[in-house]
Amino acid sequence: MNPAQSIAQQFLQQYYQTLMTNKMALIQFYTNASIMTYGGELYNGLKAINEKLESLAFQKIVYKIDDMDVQPGAVQNSLFLFVTGSLQMDDSDAFKFSQSFQILPNGQGGLYVHNDIFRLVY
Amino acid sequence: MNPAQSIAQQFLQQYYQTLMTNKMALIQFYTNASIMTYGGELYNGLKAINEKLESLAFQKIVYKIDDMDVQPGAVQNSLFLFVTGSLQMDDSDAFKFSQSFQILPNGQGGLYVHNDIFRLVY
Repeated sequence: MNPAQSIAQQFLQQYYQTLMTNKMALIQFYTNASIMTYGGELYNGLKAINEKLESLAFQKIVYKIDDMDVQPGAVQNSLFLFVTGSLQMDDSDAFKFSQSFQILPNGQGGLYVHNDIFRLVY
Repeated sequence: MNPAQSIAQQFLQQYYQTLMTNKMALIQFYTNASIMTYGGELYNGLKAINEKLESLAFQKIVYKIDDMDVQPGAVQNSLFLFVTGSLQMDDSDAFKFSQSFQILPNGQGGLYVHNDIFRLVY
């Protein structure tokens, strides 16, 4: 595993772990420059993303990652990530999903989600 | 449809139309700065991408796009794209796929594929 893959894996583990255990804490991965698209709807900046997180109505969600791809992004020290997997909400069947991120340095030694696009795949 | 969506749709139409009709001509969408990941393998720059295109053994491929999402990318006038759809090679069954691109200005008024990650989703 190269350094980019290692950073990506650690980032995604933290991201999905947070989403599974405390969805409102997921906002820490975003900034006002962030753009999230979820099911075809676009949410721009912290306020819109926070409202979208609040609206997610599941009691329990379980993510399982099948594959993760990583590339260097368009700016220095950024990463372009692609995830496929499945998720299960409450007692639903499992759904396949794909999600793509671009994560950028946050100026404080960490990374934030600049671009985030999520789709269920049926 | 906003201007970014319109540019993205036109770009993707040209991209998949080229792939379906003349796969080797797809190289025109890439530069030496491009990175393509296909089935978990990474191809960096024109030579590697061209060799990968040559290795694709289908006689006939048909892409059908189900959904397209677009966001502004990390650098000015760049776009972050996400596609889900299905494809059929020769007489195979249809496979679901997801593909994510970041397209950047090429300095000549056009756009090139900087990041490209493709996965079949089963």
